[in-house]
Amino acid sequence: MVELKGLPGFRDFYPEELAARSYLMGVWRDVARRYGFEEYDGPPLEALELYTRKSGEEIVQQLYEFEDKGGRRVALRPEMTPSLARMVGVRAAALRKPVRWFSTPQLFRYERKQRGRLREHFQLNLDILGEEDVLADADLLAAAIDIMRATGLDSTQVRARVSDRRVLAAIFLHIGVPETKLESVYEVVDKLDREPRDRLEARLAELGLEPDAIAGVFDATELRGIEELRARFGDVPSVAERVAELATYLEHLENLGVVEFVDVDLSVVRGLAYYTGIVFELWDAGRKLRAICGGGRYDDLLGLIAGIDMPAIGFGMGDVVLTELLRDHGLLPEPGRALDCFVCWLGADGRRQALRAARAIRALGLSAIFEFRDRRLGNQLKSADQLGARRAVIVGPQEIEASQARIRDMSTGEERVVPFDELGPTLAAELGDG
Amino acid sequence: MVELKGLPGFRDFYPEELAARSYLMGVWRDVARRYGFEEYDGPPLEALELYTRKSGEEIVQQLYEFEDKGGRRVALRPEMTPSLARMVGVRAAALRKPVRWFSTPQLFRYERKQRGRLREHFQLNLDILGEEDVLADADLLAAAIDIMRATGLDSTQVRARVSDRRVLAAIFLHIGVPETKLESVYEVVDKLDREPRDRLEARLAELGLEPDAIAGVFDATELRGIEELRARFGDVPSVAERVAELATYLEHLENLGVVEFVDVDLSVVRGLAYYTGIVFELWDAGRKLRAICGGGRYDDLLGLIAGIDMPAIGFGMGDVVLTELLRDHGLLPEPGRALDCFVCWLGADGRRQALRAARAIRALGLSAIFEFRDRRLGNQLKSADQLGARRAVIVGPQEIEASQARIRDMSTGEERVVPFDELGPTLAAELGDG
Repeated sequence: MVELKGLPGFRDFYPEELAARSYLMGVWRDVARRYGFEEYDGPPLEALELYTRKSGEEIVQQLYEFEDKGGRRVALRPEMTPSLARMVGVRAAALRKPVRWFSTPQLFRYERKQRGRLREHFQLNLDILGEEDVLADADLLAAAIDIMRATGLDSTQVRARVSDRRVLAAIFLHIGVPETKLESVYEVVDKLDREPRDRLEARLAELGLEPDAIAGVFDATELRGIEELRARFGDVPSVAERVAELATYLEHLENLGVVEFVDVDLSVVRGLAYYTGIVFELWDAGRKLRAICGGGRYDDLLGLIAGIDMPAIGFGMGDVVLTELLRDHGLLPEPGRALDCFVCWLGADGRRQALRAARAIRALGLSAIFEFRDRRLGNQLKSADQLGARRAVIVGPQEIEASQARIRDMSTGEERVVPFDELGPTLAAELGDG
Repeated sequence: MVELKGLPGFRDFYPEELAARSYLMGVWRDVARRYGFEEYDGPPLEALELYTRKSGEEIVQQLYEFEDKGGRRVALRPEMTPSLARMVGVRAAALRKPVRWFSTPQLFRYERKQRGRLREHFQLNLDILGEEDVLADADLLAAAIDIMRATGLDSTQVRARVSDRRVLAAIFLHIGVPETKLESVYEVVDKLDREPRDRLEARLAELGLEPDAIAGVFDATELRGIEELRARFGDVPSVAERVAELATYLEHLENLGVVEFVDVDLSVVRGLAYYTGIVFELWDAGRKLRAICGGGRYDDLLGLIAGIDMPAIGFGMGDVVLTELLRDHGLLPEPGRALDCFVCWLGADGRRQALRAARAIRALGLSAIFEFRDRRLGNQLKSADQLGARRAVIVGPQEIEASQARIRDMSTGEERVVPFDELGPTLAAELGDG
């Protein structure tokens, strides 16, 4: 028989890998909850038009898309925001604003060229809809940074790079970039890390920028920190006004206790055309991996997808890069099943008592496994050890005779006996969460 | 703009529905953990052959299947067992037996005829692989029943209908059904609830069964309880031997504390051809809904799919019927976000202090939201109330002056003040889980 394999780019989550995924999902959910976000989910399969409406027909070649048996053009979701926009659009009038929602969908992309790259990942999406104030932007970034903290990552290991498209726009307009070319210039700036400067200069020239403006674009993207921004453009009112708002944002971040993670870095624009204000990315401090997280303000997107006028901010944080970073820093929890009790038994009477013991232990919230077959006690204890059980419970002929169960602490080897009917409560007191 | 809708048969999970789903998933995970099962997951997209290998080409018409951009025939998973078999197959030699695994996948079926029916659902899959002893069968059913209990459903509300294909086979052979016709007879028996008796009789006749054998098949399916079985076939050794094993199974269920839920009911065969031993279904006691859960022993399936010889048992429990039943019995938890604190502020100084308060509260594991804009206190308190906050924290000019925050208990309206730096610990002591 030919052995069947999983599809290339799709992960199997054996218990070890699933444990890491669950850990990360747990952190995501806990921080989202602390920040007052509510969880939602959409379908993994949507009408193809939901994605082309936002990203144009060219997105189709990157999607798992097909015609279903009812003749609909459908696609596996490549991102969550269109589903979010659709869902919010349906209930826009009834929902309390601001909407604070999060989701942890699995997303899918078919990228032909990237052999060896994953075609699915899980992504936390955290969004605030219906609020224009920059304080909401600060609260959003604080949540992303507090996720880093909750995993044990600190500001020497992770940096938040923050920029503002409105600051960039004011600067670019000031140095002579025509307004109609702004989007195209952002696209060039977005490639700063990946393409040689002369090629990018050539592209800006193709767009019709004068040499001074081209130099000005590169100068602007090298600006770091609010002080540099003020020193360079403090006397240009159109820019200074935008810089002041960015400064307010940073002040909020300071009061929210996360500013130590933040660098103002005007080379960050985020590739996607739909961002309209502050944008940010989280990176490992050494910039060895890809971005951990990216997001920002996208005030026009709900209009484009769902026809509703609602400002919005949000970010996506994938599981792959973050898990890699946590593994590098030894911050993933130890794998291994948290088994409380392994119940060993000898003989049919022992078995009967073992089942009753397991039932009592499980009823108190602890986990218990028993042997399915009559095996030698030594072998059973070996199984208990290999499974990482915290306690072995033993019911053999002597214990039955005395109506007692023997409890063995698997880490110390210490043993003691308790009456059958005290077994569950005794173990719950020792091992329970309280 | 044309409003985009979700695809027919796919659910949007707004926070209210997501909360119900999370609750159910939480119960599933907790009981699985108590029974010592480890979680795994496979990809939602698999090679089509994984499903045709098990179910034949006719399954294709019920699937979301397509050719991907690399020319592979792929399908959205309609069930989890083939992925489980594939994954276990890869590591069969290395895995400790018995394997105790569970998963909670979303599954997909395209059923053209069933308009209005869902095309996706979530399903708990809980399996034990590598164990032939009937004690494992009992442990598996006990886990399914304890899930019912964990939701608050009792044995007057849910019944487990248990049968054994080997008992049925022994009876059918005894009354003259040819061995080669057994599978076909099971298929007829499986339709007892859905088709008129005369049509089923005609089918059995078409299979070549004599009138006596036909009557015997119907008589057998009307047997209820182990005593009836013993009374009717106790003197037929080939049947009695199988009935004895079923009796052992029931004895184990009694020791595991779940037998009060269980009815032996030989009309249950489960439709699928691959079951080889004990089979069971959970139903609402009134049988008004569809089955809550179904499963049993499928010792040959891992051979068929993955080419490995490994006995196996398992069940699937969907989210749809169970959620409906819980709603009918008022057993779903109240919806509503569990917001601990809503922080109200007045003026820029108040805002600064509010952000610091939120930071302190969140850092201690509680949830906090603050106003994004300077609004009248009455409006802010109204928001706090509408959001179901347990406490409002108020920082206005008077509080700033005194370096204190006001805490308002939103259920009683009582207010008191605490120094800023005691706010977090005070609230954590009052509202924390411990």
